[in-house]
Amino acid sequence: MDPAATSQISHLALDIGGTLIKLVYFSANGDHCEDSRSNEISVVHGKLCFAKFETKKIDDCLEFIRFNILHHSGVQHQNGMAHDKLSVKATGGGAFKFADLFKEKLGILLDKEDEMCSLVGGVNFLLKTVPREAFTYLDGQKEFVEIDHNDLYPYLLVNIGSGVSMIKVDGDGKYERISGTSLGGGTFLGLGKLLTKCESFDELLELSHHGNNRVIDMLVGDIYGGTDYSKIGLSSTAIASSFGKAISDGKELEDYQPEDVARSLLRMISNNIGQIAYLNALRFGLKRILFGGFFIRGLEYTMDTISVAVHFWSRGEAKAMFLRHEGFLGALGAFTSYKTQSHNDLKSNQHTVQRPILNCSGDNFRHIPVTSNLNDSETIECSISLV
Amino acid sequence: MDPAATSQISHLALDIGGTLIKLVYFSANGDHCEDSRSNEISVVHGKLCFAKFETKKIDDCLEFIRFNILHHSGVQHQNGMAHDKLSVKATGGGAFKFADLFKEKLGILLDKEDEMCSLVGGVNFLLKTVPREAFTYLDGQKEFVEIDHNDLYPYLLVNIGSGVSMIKVDGDGKYERISGTSLGGGTFLGLGKLLTKCESFDELLELSHHGNNRVIDMLVGDIYGGTDYSKIGLSSTAIASSFGKAISDGKELEDYQPEDVARSLLRMISNNIGQIAYLNALRFGLKRILFGGFFIRGLEYTMDTISVAVHFWSRGEAKAMFLRHEGFLGALGAFTSYKTQSHNDLKSNQHTVQRPILNCSGDNFRHIPVTSNLNDSETIECSISLV
Repeated sequence: MDPAATSQISHLALDIGGTLIKLVYFSANGDHCEDSRSNEISVVHGKLCFAKFETKKIDDCLEFIRFNILHHSGVQHQNGMAHDKLSVKATGGGAFKFADLFKEKLGILLDKEDEMCSLVGGVNFLLKTVPREAFTYLDGQKEFVEIDHNDLYPYLLVNIGSGVSMIKVDGDGKYERISGTSLGGGTFLGLGKLLTKCESFDELLELSHHGNNRVIDMLVGDIYGGTDYSKIGLSSTAIASSFGKAISDGKELEDYQPEDVARSLLRMISNNIGQIAYLNALRFGLKRILFGGFFIRGLEYTMDTISVAVHFWSRGEAKAMFLRHEGFLGALGAFTSYKTQSHNDLKSNQHTVQRPILNCSGDNFRHIPVTSNLNDSETIECSISLV
Repeated sequence: MDPAATSQISHLALDIGGTLIKLVYFSANGDHCEDSRSNEISVVHGKLCFAKFETKKIDDCLEFIRFNILHHSGVQHQNGMAHDKLSVKATGGGAFKFADLFKEKLGILLDKEDEMCSLVGGVNFLLKTVPREAFTYLDGQKEFVEIDHNDLYPYLLVNIGSGVSMIKVDGDGKYERISGTSLGGGTFLGLGKLLTKCESFDELLELSHHGNNRVIDMLVGDIYGGTDYSKIGLSSTAIASSFGKAISDGKELEDYQPEDVARSLLRMISNNIGQIAYLNALRFGLKRILFGGFFIRGLEYTMDTISVAVHFWSRGEAKAMFLRHEGFLGALGAFTSYKTQSHNDLKSNQHTVQRPILNCSGDNFRHIPVTSNLNDSETIECSISLV
């Protein structure tokens, strides 16, 4: 929980959603050096660090910030509050809902960034700066996609948080939220908790990993006596009705394995998101669909279901793509919004200087490719420019 | 259960779905008369009658047919079987799955009609023949829509059975299944049974009628601290995440009112179907979306949710329409397929004559407008031509 213990922390950004709070912060290595291109700029090497908390456990998040970030940023007063009014970038609905709490408990002012703008900013930052960030996943095969920076737009961003937002992105800061669905990660976890009594998202995903959705989903073959409905291209194993077998099985909830229930739920929601995403991509002629948000969690079955849905409905025309830092898009976007302001912002919002400190062109960011799946403590090595 | 007790029954058609079996049959009044246009044709006055059974209680359906239809059609043998091989039109997956059962128990051969073809045939029959069949429903206002027969096509048919089929209809017999979703009536009842322990679709609908979805759905205002996210047009009362409040409430399933759970479920599924239907209508430029299938059951809240979804996503451009005989589309379509065969078909499939007996042009059908909602025993008065 303390990746920042020995480092100088600066530039915290928060994304406070309905279910999770996501944090991104810069931790310097301590080896400042002068930028060769300007005498006024020094370059700080370090890394972007990530953390997350459940929104309902927001007190844990406040403590984390107090002890690991305020302390190491040198702005902490004896009472654990920031010395001055400390301004921190924040996005998501919680940036509004919990603004008073942050001010009261930590002396932090939440500098609100628009949620959609931050999501888009986060994705553009990742795609332009971090190599091997985007990948496809189908039939157990993960393939990294190198995207030409000059051929990045347009794309459809599907952010799966508690709910789902679908955003058409046409350029840097050029985007429109075109659709969404209320069947998202909150539905998966909410229904999952009610149906399986599991306590956390991780537990529910683990359950789903061992389940078989065919126990509870009604398949085409269940209706057609084991045969396909080939005339319209529906195989006997296609799901005709999610949870449809529960109608006639004569079973109660307790008679089903929680694993099978979790699996059906994950399949239902992933497939539905994939379908609605594809229909929206089709509407605007977008071939590239990027899926992000904490729902995915790098889980192969989820990515496979989404990919299959996009592939099935588009008849192979569109491709689902995923991002290694999928869960931190909004927080990363809020973080990059520091770029037009001074590094000193973290200490005080009185001294703004309109110069970029986060150069997203790739010059100032070095990234060490990581082959394993991202976990919360995985960082992005980078450098930032200080005025 | 015996609307046919005093009448001569002929022409039975079945639609055997994953959840329900729907029956349509013609019951003659007994007042045969000669058709003025042909000496070979006599016109029989009577009515189309409707009945339904749960597929899992198929034995009840078989008994119903044995006692109420075979008996009154005069084809029943002492053992309750048809004298000869009796051929009956049937559609839906169960026409395949239960073919042997019908033959064995009743001596009936199921003459299989394609499911999508039957649905389309049923809708076209209703729209062309039965006045005051289609209507819109919004804000508690039901308005009948008179559709010009020459301006009927194209339309999108959304049939909500256990699963959902979306069919683009371009003319008589000209159609394509363009989409669908596994989140249908089977999902509503399947999840509903697991979550509320209710036993039937009617019970679950009745529960939902008294519930409040805001108890368990996460609204935009729940994330944004009571405010709208006005920049992207989301009001504070919009559902951000269906069942999302269940994540953080600290409640277990037993702590929620079944009414609220049923309401959230109905809202989630109706809204999702409305959205996917609209996206498909948009894709093919279809302004008219007809919703059918037994899921709707004339329930105002369901129709209102679907209508609002179509209105919201289309920004008022598209309209949801409903059908009074929504639950019997496939069965009606299968029934109309008798039109190219002889009336004697019900007695034996040996004597087919290629003349229409069901003229859907309206000449042979008289319909007495009914102002109340349809219930299972509500009939369509009509006449059929016999060779």
